[in-house]
Amino acid sequence: MPSSEPRQKLWIETGGQLVMSDYRVRLLELVAETGSLAEAASALGLSYRRAWGKVKEIEANLGRPLVRSEVGGAGGGRTLLTPEAEELVTAYRRFQQRVEQDVEGAYDAELRDLLSPP
Amino acid sequence: MPSSEPRQKLWIETGGQLVMSDYRVRLLELVAETGSLAEAASALGLSYRRAWGKVKEIEANLGRPLVRSEVGGAGGGRTLLTPEAEELVTAYRRFQQRVEQDVEGAYDAELRDLLSPP
Repeated sequence: MPSSEPRQKLWIETGGQLVMSDYRVRLLELVAETGSLAEAASALGLSYRRAWGKVKEIEANLGRPLVRSEVGGAGGGRTLLTPEAEELVTAYRRFQQRVEQDVEGAYDAELRDLLSPP
Repeated sequence: MPSSEPRQKLWIETGGQLVMSDYRVRLLELVAETGSLAEAASALGLSYRRAWGKVKEIEANLGRPLVRSEVGGAGGGRTLLTPEAEELVTAYRRFQQRVEQDVEGAYDAELRDLLSPP
């Protein structure tokens, strides 16, 4: 029997409404990595329209702009994260990593021995 | 704008399969509280058959008995948790509470200021 492992899903709510999640942060990260909302959408299997709507929804919920467009150049323009969005993505990833470590620690302290194969 | 709060969902997997979750622990707790699988099922909006199946599934996944029946008496018999199940439920709740505190701490450290209303 393989050993048991803890899993967790994290998100942020404001007034009971989901405003940030691993998935949403991944979308923003992909925009930053690819410089393109279309490519970020494609990587997540979303339509461009849906990805755009998701970004606008997060912006509205957080009350701040998260992406900006850079027009022109060889590739015909890029989509970039705002400095605020970059800071938010970085902070969320630190939050997530911290919690992952904490979950492992809590599991080791409380449950691992109990759930080990007899 | 109300303040943002972190939320999390926890579960335990063995070999990629879900073996424990808040919901499953709640089912076991309700058995302990009510002395009846039928009442525990009802409290969760489950059929008796489905609740019974869920308990048997957890027992199979963990390789140990979790409920036992006490026959007879005024109420016509009760369903109780085994000592192992009681220990597991208690340990899972401690694990969960520890993680909740850790999530708050990680959120305070990494995200709360960034997500506060401007």
